[in-house]
Amino acid sequence: MSGPAPQPSSSAVEVIAAKRDRHELTPGQIEGVLGAYTRGEVAEEQMAALAMAILLNGMTAAETAHWTQAMIGSGEVLDLGDVGRPLVDKHSTGGVGDKITLPLAPLVAACGAAVPQLSGRGLGHTGGTLDKLEAIPGWRASLSTDEIRTQLAEVGAVVCATTPTLAPADRRLYALRDVTGTVESVPLIASSIMSKKLAEGTGGLVLDVKVGSGAFMKTRERAGELAGAMTAIGAAHGLPTTALLTGMSRPLGRCVGNALEVAESVEVLRGGGPGDVVALTVTLAREMLALAGITGTDPAAVLASGAAYDVWERMIAAQGGDPAAPLPVARHVETLTADRSGIFAGADALAVGTAAWRLGAGRARKEDPVQAAAGVRMLAVPGDEVRAGDPLLELHTDTPERLPGARQLLTATALPVAAGPPVFEELVLDVRRGG
Amino acid sequence: MSGPAPQPSSSAVEVIAAKRDRHELTPGQIEGVLGAYTRGEVAEEQMAALAMAILLNGMTAAETAHWTQAMIGSGEVLDLGDVGRPLVDKHSTGGVGDKITLPLAPLVAACGAAVPQLSGRGLGHTGGTLDKLEAIPGWRASLSTDEIRTQLAEVGAVVCATTPTLAPADRRLYALRDVTGTVESVPLIASSIMSKKLAEGTGGLVLDVKVGSGAFMKTRERAGELAGAMTAIGAAHGLPTTALLTGMSRPLGRCVGNALEVAESVEVLRGGGPGDVVALTVTLAREMLALAGITGTDPAAVLASGAAYDVWERMIAAQGGDPAAPLPVARHVETLTADRSGIFAGADALAVGTAAWRLGAGRARKEDPVQAAAGVRMLAVPGDEVRAGDPLLELHTDTPERLPGARQLLTATALPVAAGPPVFEELVLDVRRGG
Repeated sequence: MSGPAPQPSSSAVEVIAAKRDRHELTPGQIEGVLGAYTRGEVAEEQMAALAMAILLNGMTAAETAHWTQAMIGSGEVLDLGDVGRPLVDKHSTGGVGDKITLPLAPLVAACGAAVPQLSGRGLGHTGGTLDKLEAIPGWRASLSTDEIRTQLAEVGAVVCATTPTLAPADRRLYALRDVTGTVESVPLIASSIMSKKLAEGTGGLVLDVKVGSGAFMKTRERAGELAGAMTAIGAAHGLPTTALLTGMSRPLGRCVGNALEVAESVEVLRGGGPGDVVALTVTLAREMLALAGITGTDPAAVLASGAAYDVWERMIAAQGGDPAAPLPVARHVETLTADRSGIFAGADALAVGTAAWRLGAGRARKEDPVQAAAGVRMLAVPGDEVRAGDPLLELHTDTPERLPGARQLLTATALPVAAGPPVFEELVLDVRRGG
Repeated sequence: MSGPAPQPSSSAVEVIAAKRDRHELTPGQIEGVLGAYTRGEVAEEQMAALAMAILLNGMTAAETAHWTQAMIGSGEVLDLGDVGRPLVDKHSTGGVGDKITLPLAPLVAACGAAVPQLSGRGLGHTGGTLDKLEAIPGWRASLSTDEIRTQLAEVGAVVCATTPTLAPADRRLYALRDVTGTVESVPLIASSIMSKKLAEGTGGLVLDVKVGSGAFMKTRERAGELAGAMTAIGAAHGLPTTALLTGMSRPLGRCVGNALEVAESVEVLRGGGPGDVVALTVTLAREMLALAGITGTDPAAVLASGAAYDVWERMIAAQGGDPAAPLPVARHVETLTADRSGIFAGADALAVGTAAWRLGAGRARKEDPVQAAAGVRMLAVPGDEVRAGDPLLELHTDTPERLPGARQLLTATALPVAAGPPVFEELVLDVRRGG
């Protein structure tokens, strides 16, 4: 070097340097760099450096709103037209045993709203919602926009695969963040989620932000940050948005795994099922109905009436599935028992989730298949009195070589049996309304 | 997403996350990630994210020493063998008109040391040292290791191109940093410079860290940080290292440009030339001789004796150059004059450097050619009394369409003529000894 390099004009480097030096990015800079990224004019390594600078130096609410807008602008916005009902959707940041979409979408449709839930296939303890539904023989995840529109008008609920035309820059950026240690940025997580929901064309959005060992956000503080960032984006884009912080230290319900969670969801839709799944389903339904402007309808009563189950059957059948067909059953089931007598304090969500993943319920890479029947079923619930040797949970898998790895996680620490009653976790920790 | 992603094992992501979360990287992590980068197993986008995390979160002295070691380990260390003289080298962080290597290498050789100066081709106001010497008809920059060894033994000084086998990871990383806004990291700059000098096999090193408008480091504080980081690396690797902080608010000497700087260097070697160039050359030579263990030789006397000029002629001839051949002369020369009467306070280094670059003396991209004859020659020096209309400096170029862009920079602010005497800058601001 013989002196400072007079840089060739390069707007991407300028944007990176601005964020590196803690400046607020202008709308023009954000649209410019993401537009160029979408056109392939900004290299992956430049976007990686920008993502790390954003992770470490943050983005203001205004920057995050513009970033989201640019993500939406990288693709098309779905035109759902007039489906004859108010549109409202829900998004969960993900938890162990979180099958709530399955009973919730038909329930909210049975109450008179339309739920257009377009989902991606994430990496996770269990597959995403699509993997769960694919455990149902014949069910297909891919629908055309016309099919989505028709099903929303006729059935009121669609759970299907998102299309590659919605926020394509987000898809590329997410893959990049996954390999560059830049996933854990609140503004980037918030804009990723919100850009897809805004592009989907929903009229209202309820966010279920999970907090605890089995959630992406481990602390209430971080979850609150994310909830605040997402409701602010909703507000900036005129989308009525409500965020609930809900506990995820223990798995939701008794079942973790694809077919196992479908079966448990059907129990709930038939008026049974675990109390925590029922309670959270009804709570989220109330918030969705409020955003949809539907008053005077009690989702708990609708659930008990069987009307939600009827919508479920029609929703599954409309996408080629047979709601009456038997679900896949695992070839190998192993039971774990209590090592002492006392009160079962509840299983640790992360341990159960990782065990289910090791049994084959989730995937390590996007292209991996999942086992429909693999997972964990809990036989005891927190507060149950157990004696040494009583069964606590079952491990399900088609591939028995996966059993030791799962068993190893479910030690006495992960399945605590104590002398006194357990501390029950509150279902809803906080609510943020925006938009 | 349905829950936190259980990551596939990926050591690069773990190293990025560790630095992102402000942990000190272990020697194993540093060697692992840079070794994998050299082998092509770590993607450019991963290294970009890591570089940004390092820029924003820093590296300790221990991390920087290990990083440097891994850079050296990515290639070979030159074996210069026994050249019969102590080896000592100098590196400048670069400044406007900084041609000091040209008189310095022959002077130190004339005093009994051997100077193995291997240089890269940087982007800069003027070309690097190699571009300057290439203004001499016939001179070639590329030598084999055998040729370097022979020339060091017989002449005592070599200025030539670095080989691609020395610290190749640094070359790739520098190109990556250039497009990702991650150049300005003190530990990365320090390890980049030091890895190349350590791989070159020198026995002692004097660092000229420039401070001021025409330098990469604009403040004494930042320059001190860089000097401290480099001497610490020298100490960690057992290389005796001295760093001088020297002023770069005004250009060194009167000439900026490739052939113009060669001509000025020859003036110095013949016992004339601008006082600041002579003073800095002698000061750096004293520090180099001290590291080489050569005492009782006064470089000022050796310079005055003409012995350094003799070495210069032999050094140029050994690399195919004709030291007696006329240097290229620019086709177009324009003179700028004082707009008022008073005392010339000295030209701003950045303005003059950028003007020389616009005239064709430097390059914007690595593959661009430079004009050998382009540049700026100052006709007045700080403290000169001038009258309105007196010539202040000349613009030299082969391509007259470049004149307006250069002229535009050299306004009254860049070429101040004041009522009183100028503030002279100290030559040496600080000295750090280490290693």
